[in-house]
Formats: sequence, C-alpha cells, structure tokens
Amino acid sequence: MTSVDSTVLAELIAALPDGALVSDPDLTAGYRQDWAADPNAGTPLAVVRATCTEDIQAVMRWATEYRVPVVPRGAGSGLSGGSSAVDGCVMVSTEKMRQIMIDPVARVAVTQPGLMNAEVKNAAAEHGLWYPPDPSSFEICSIGGNAATNAGGLCCVKYGVTTDYVLALKVVLADGTAVSLGGPLLKDVAGLSLTKLFVGSEGTLGIITELTLRLIPAQPPASTVVASFDSVEEAADAVLAITGNIRPAMLEFMDHASINAVEDSVRMGLNRKARALILAQSDAPGAAGVLEIESIVAACENNGATEVFATDDKAEGDAFTAARRAVFPAVQALGNLLLEDVGVPMRALPRLITGVEAIAADLDVLICTVAHAGDGNTHPLIVFDPSDPDMTERAQIAFGRVMDLAIALGGTITGEHGVGRIKRDWLPAQLGEDVMALNRKIKDALDPLGILNPGAVLVLGD
Amino acid sequence: MTSVDSTVLAELIAALPDGALVSDPDLTAGYRQDWAADPNAGTPLAVVRATCTEDIQAVMRWATEYRVPVVPRGAGSGLSGGSSAVDGCVMVSTEKMRQIMIDPVARVAVTQPGLMNAEVKNAAAEHGLWYPPDPSSFEICSIGGNAATNAGGLCCVKYGVTTDYVLALKVVLADGTAVSLGGPLLKDVAGLSLTKLFVGSEGTLGIITELTLRLIPAQPPASTVVASFDSVEEAADAVLAITGNIRPAMLEFMDHASINAVEDSVRMGLNRKARALILAQSDAPGAAGVLEIESIVAACENNGATEVFATDDKAEGDAFTAARRAVFPAVQALGNLLLEDVGVPMRALPRLITGVEAIAADLDVLICTVAHAGDGNTHPLIVFDPSDPDMTERAQIAFGRVMDLAIALGGTITGEHGVGRIKRDWLPAQLGEDVMALNRKIKDALDPLGILNPGAVLVLGD
Repeated sequence: MTSVDSTVLAELIAALPDGALVSDPDLTAGYRQDWAADPNAGTPLAVVRATCTEDIQAVMRWATEYRVPVVPRGAGSGLSGGSSAVDGCVMVSTEKMRQIMIDPVARVAVTQPGLMNAEVKNAAAEHGLWYPPDPSSFEICSIGGNAATNAGGLCCVKYGVTTDYVLALKVVLADGTAVSLGGPLLKDVAGLSLTKLFVGSEGTLGIITELTLRLIPAQPPASTVVASFDSVEEAADAVLAITGNIRPAMLEFMDHASINAVEDSVRMGLNRKARALILAQSDAPGAAGVLEIESIVAACENNGATEVFATDDKAEGDAFTAARRAVFPAVQALGNLLLEDVGVPMRALPRLITGVEAIAADLDVLICTVAHAGDGNTHPLIVFDPSDPDMTERAQIAFGRVMDLAIALGGTITGEHGVGRIKRDWLPAQLGEDVMALNRKIKDALDPLGILNPGAVLVLGD
Repeated sequence: MTSVDSTVLAELIAALPDGALVSDPDLTAGYRQDWAADPNAGTPLAVVRATCTEDIQAVMRWATEYRVPVVPRGAGSGLSGGSSAVDGCVMVSTEKMRQIMIDPVARVAVTQPGLMNAEVKNAAAEHGLWYPPDPSSFEICSIGGNAATNAGGLCCVKYGVTTDYVLALKVVLADGTAVSLGGPLLKDVAGLSLTKLFVGSEGTLGIITELTLRLIPAQPPASTVVASFDSVEEAADAVLAITGNIRPAMLEFMDHASINAVEDSVRMGLNRKARALILAQSDAPGAAGVLEIESIVAACENNGATEVFATDDKAEGDAFTAARRAVFPAVQALGNLLLEDVGVPMRALPRLITGVEAIAADLDVLICTVAHAGDGNTHPLIVFDPSDPDMTERAQIAFGRVMDLAIALGGTITGEHGVGRIKRDWLPAQLGEDVMALNRKIKDALDPLGILNPGAVLVLGD
C-alpha cells in the first residue's frame, strides 16, 4: 500500500459531501475497533460517514487509484474483529444511510444498510409484517452488518438465517462499480447466485449499500417453556428430544455460570442452583401450539428436568427472552471476554457443551456457555482479567481449544458472528487447503488489489 | 479445444470403472438433449455414467489435461438446455449415483445427486420429515439438477426454493479437485458462502456429487380452494389479495388454454369456460387453517370469482394439484413448446399475465399460461407447429417478447428453470454489463480453461 499524503486525501474530500470525511484522530479513534476489541486493530487514516451509494463509489474509486485499504463498518457491534481498522485505511461507516421503504404487496423491505435490525423489524411491523433474523444484539446491530456476516439469532432454529431473507443487494465493488444483484422476487435464477455470495462475505468482496429483504406475516404469539436441569448432559439430551419431535420457534440454553451472571445483573428469578436452563418457545397457532408446548415439557421432564415452567403469557415469555439476551452484557461485567461462536451438528451438541466444561476445568478459566441450542450454535464466553498475564494466556489457549473441539466434532468455528480477524487463523483447520484456495480465488477475482477489508477472513497477501 | 483421438480417450476409459464410459453413438444420442430439446445441441464424444465422486474427478483431471468440454447431466429434465451436448464433449451423467442417508436427529438428508426429487421426499417421509422444494417435474427431475438450477416449485411461496434447503455440497472443480462445502448445520459462516454460489450455477463452476439437505417436520395436511374467474385480471387481483393477507402453502394460476389442455388430457371436471383458475392451499393447523381458507375464499369472491370450491379432503386437493402439474404434458400434446419461466415482482403480476395475452394475440400464437402465482413466477407455454416455418418464427418472436416484457416489469427471464443455452442471449438485458462482468470474473476464476458446461449461462469464450 502506498502512504497517502494530504494532496491525495484532499482529492477524496473533494469527491464527498462536506463533512463526510473525518480525519481528526480524536474522532477516528472511536472507529478503530468493533465489539471484539481487537487488540491488534490499526489506526485509520480517515473515516467516511457515507450518505449514499455514490459516496462509497467515490471512496472505492479513489482507494483503487491510490491502493488504500478500505474497511467497511456498520454499527460496530461485530464480535470477531471484522471491522478492526487497518493502519492507514479509510473506514467506511454506513451509520448515516438510514432510508427504508416497506412494500406490503411485494412483502419486502428495501433498506439502506445503516438501520438497526430492530428498526427494520419495527418498520415491517407497521404493516403487520415480520423480518425474522434476530441476533441477540438486534437493537444495536445494523442490517448491513447482519448481511455482511450472515447473522443469525434466536429464531433461526425455525425461521432460518439472514441469507434466507436477502433477495437483492446493491453492492459497491472494489473498483467503485455499483451493481444491483437480484430483485424483489422469491424466485430468480438468472446468472450466478451473486446475492448469496455477498451475504456473509464480511466486506471482503464489496460494500453493501442497499438490501431488499423478504418479509413474512407477523409472528403468531408464542408460548414459552423454561426448564432447569441438574446437569448439562441432561439439558443437551432434552434439546435433542425436542428438535427430534417438533420445530420450536426458539430453543436456547444457558449454563450455570450464565444463569448466575444474569441473576447478578437483572434478577429474573432464575434457579441459581441449576446447572443448565432451557428456554423454548412455540408459535404454532391454537391447538397445534398447545401440543408443541406439551411436547417440549415432556422432553424436559423425560430428561431429568428438576423444574419446568410453561406460560402462554407473552409478557412473561418476553421477560425470559430478555434474560437470555442479557447474558452477553451480564458476563461482560465479570471481566474481559473472548467470545466464541462455535457450532456443531445437533448430535454432537452434548459433547461440545461437556467438552467446553472440561476445557474450562483443565485450564482453570471461567467459561459461561449460552447457546442457540436448537440449531447447534453455542457461545462459550471465556472470561479473563487482562491484568493477569497468566490467566490471559490460559484464556487464549482455551479460545483455540474450543474451536479445535468444534472442528473435531464436525462443526464450525463461527455459526453467526463471522471469521473477521479474531478467528482467521483457525479457518484453514476447518475448511482445508482446497476450500481456502477457492475462497482466495474468488477474493482475488473480485478484489485483485486486495484493498477491501484486507486481513479479514483471509490472511493478508498470501 | 483440442480434438481427442482414441489413445487419449483410452486414458479416460482406463481411469474409470468398466463400462462407465459409453461412446457408441446410438447410446450417446439419448444424452444429447434435455427436455428443452435444444435444436442446436451438439454431438458428445462420450457419456460417462459416474458411480462416485472419484469417477467425476477422473473425468475433470483428464478434461483439464486435454482441454475437453464437460457437460454435467442429472435426469435430463432441464427446460432451458443447460444439459445440451457440446460437440466433442464428455457428458457426465449422475444417474447412477443414488445413495441417500437420512439423519433424523440432524434433520438432514445426505444424498448423491442422481436420486429423483420424489425419492428424496419419500426417504425423508419415512422418518416423518419433509423436503419441501417441489418442481412440477418432481418425479422425473434429479436432486442434483435441482441444486444446479436452484429449482423451485409449487410450495415455494411459503417454503422457499432449493437454495434455502442446501446446507452442504461436495463439488468437483474444473481441475478435478473435490471440495466439501458447508456441513449439516443451519448456521455456518466460516469463509465465503460457497455452497450458495454453487447452487444455481448450472454446472458452469463445478459438478455436484453430494448434497446435504435440510429437512423439516412433515407438512401438515392441506386444505384446498379452487376458484374460477371470467378474466385473468380478476384472478391476478385475487392473487394479490390473498398474498397481501396470508402466506398460502400453494397459490397456482391456470389460464383458459391451460384449463382446456388439462381437461382434454385428464378430465378433471375443471370449468372449461373459465378464463382463469386459481388453485390455493393452506396447511396451517386447525382453526388457523380454517381462517386462512376463509381468507382465500373471500379474496376470490371479492375479486369476481364465478365459482369457488373449498375442501379439506386431501384426496380432492391432491387431484387438483395433479391437474395443475399435468399442464406441461397436456400442452405438449398440442404441439412443440417454447417454455417460458418469467417472474415479476408481485405488484406487476397482472400486467405480466395480460401482457402475455396481448403478445399472443398480436403474433397470432397460442400461449398457455400457468403460474406459481403466489411468488410471481409464470410459465407461458408457447405452442407451435415446427412444420409451419411462419408460425415457428412468430413463436420465437413471442419467446423473446415475453422475456423483454418481464425485464421491463422489473422481473427475471428465469425464476426456476435456469438460463441454460435457450435463454442465454437475454441474460445481459436483464443483468446489465457490470453484473455480466461479475459473473464472468467468477467463471474465469473457477474454470479458467472454460471446460465446464461451456456455453451455458454465459456466451462461449468472450
């Protein structure tokens, strides 16, 4: 990469609306890291708060001319360092791109990337429609970032992940070309599936500037089951018993440490003595929903639940869901975190959860595990005190071992957060050399200069 | 491409199981065309009936060495010439790759590509599970071909298309490398979304040798509504009224000519005088299903239906669905067909259907339109007598005009059949130059010699 002098930067400033580019280090510092707090994040040259597709085209044309790295950023809530700054880069923030239009006939939302996931949901809800994907961070994560990482959430066990709802994208490519991919159509097979390729590409192939999202009718009211267990094995077996029989609308797992972290922080009245807790919902209508709740209760009771509570009261169900969503911030109160996002085929879920417990015991680190258990996606949260170098090292070893375990169980190092920079070094172990080469070929074909989010997903420059 | 002498062919024969390669022109002739009956199909050098991934690797290594074009073929039921032979090519047929394994805990089918869609459905049903995508040809189309074209069907309006169910693929690349992409996990974002890229790539990027498909619990029994209309506009308006309110499990449309073609062929007792017919289903359980059926009936009645019939009898519903599926063969009895597969955003559906009628009147050709109306995907079937050169020419003009109309309405030239060779020339008009260039870049990155299904989707060699 060439270094950029002030004349060159002035060219970019001139190509953008007044004030769109910020280079004051006091201001750009706030854009250096995302929630992963990547200690290796660099220092950006400038931050561009884009207002439209054309602004981003201007950045990429300029970046291509001067070989400047560009790191796209949504709300900065990413958990794997996909938006860590690279030294001398331009950060492109989509925070000001906030227009949305709902078409209730086509049942789509056409939205700019800067809205929060929750804002898209709310806009859809005004028309009696629903945008399902629901990361735990849905109130503070952007819809553009959701598409860039193919984000998941709690409802995915029944309703699928972000890519299942992305019908069309507008994307700015490395050379500044803006392309429109797909359309407001459920069925469209004209040409390669490029829309789906850009979903989950973590800003390494292009920058998403508009999304057309499929909406479905509003979710029916859900009933909720909360069950406590004396062992994680029993809870994991209950999960398999539930998914082997019905398709719940939500099926979450919390371990002992997570339960207590939440109770310390929000006092939900969860059973502090439980070794594991399952939170499940059914949104099947009427009698079918009653049968599903009965089936969930039976699966828990048959697998040793010590306490099972079922309710069709929405407020009660929402409170438990909020408790589940509170795990991240609650555990953050205990120390610094290394965030895992490993997933395994359902059959291996008990072995993953008990294996993580064994790693925690072996290395003497606190790992709080919370999981979207119904789809095999777990978040072991490794807690450490950064002022304790020995503990920090043990936490980092645990971080790698959990991923090694997931891979050994036929799983993935990341179910919904993305590879970013934090998990990049483990990617080859999961994918193997040939699939890594395939990733690299596509990256090189679409970004031959390597200026788009360099170092995310793939190691720089090899 | 180099021409291949018998010594070179002998190398391939030696690399394959006995009898896997067939070069007798009497036998290879049967593999020259798919159901599109592409008149420009070439003559293959040989057909390889592969038995396993390794056979296909052997073909691709050899093809790479000698620069021989390879055309993959499933069941040959493709409707856009995606499996038309290229002169001197090796056709790789997956018809003998027929192993399947259902994992009811992971809720996946792991299948080779040669099974029919119906066989996958049946294998899943033995475990109380369901593989939703259901092309009309589901009894005679292969699951590998379904993935290669990202096939759709009748249930997609509620349940999505093939790509929504493909979790993992084994693919043989142009150079013979076999890669495993994805896994039996609903959530896996490790690396680029390559699984999704290969779905719908029509054999131009690789050959699918194994699929891991997401299954869901068996579909609840459906109730059915059949409604007749005096005009296609009223029927199209009824479709919008239905989808604006609920998400039906099926929402099909047949025009006057289709109704009568079916009646001539299978005598279902459909109303021969109707200008249009709507066939809709709800599979919502219990009272919710009753409400949905009431909503469908009301939408039809409020939009001028002359006759509305509702039934919760499964056999009756199945009979009507069979009548809808019988349209293709019934219309084929009337002459040669040019098969359309155009789709538009829902709001434009009435304009597409009436526009097709206007094209038929203007050019004096018979066009029977049947549609997966609920997702905006229509199949105008253009009937012609190949012994009448003037009619043949008018039919071909109509074929182009229907696609031009769909593009003008913001739609697609192909919703679920694929571009193949028959629709290739219209692709640039839909996608535009920049998106075509993006398709070409990915094709060139993954198949630099251009040996994988050359001439499908993209024009050869430019």
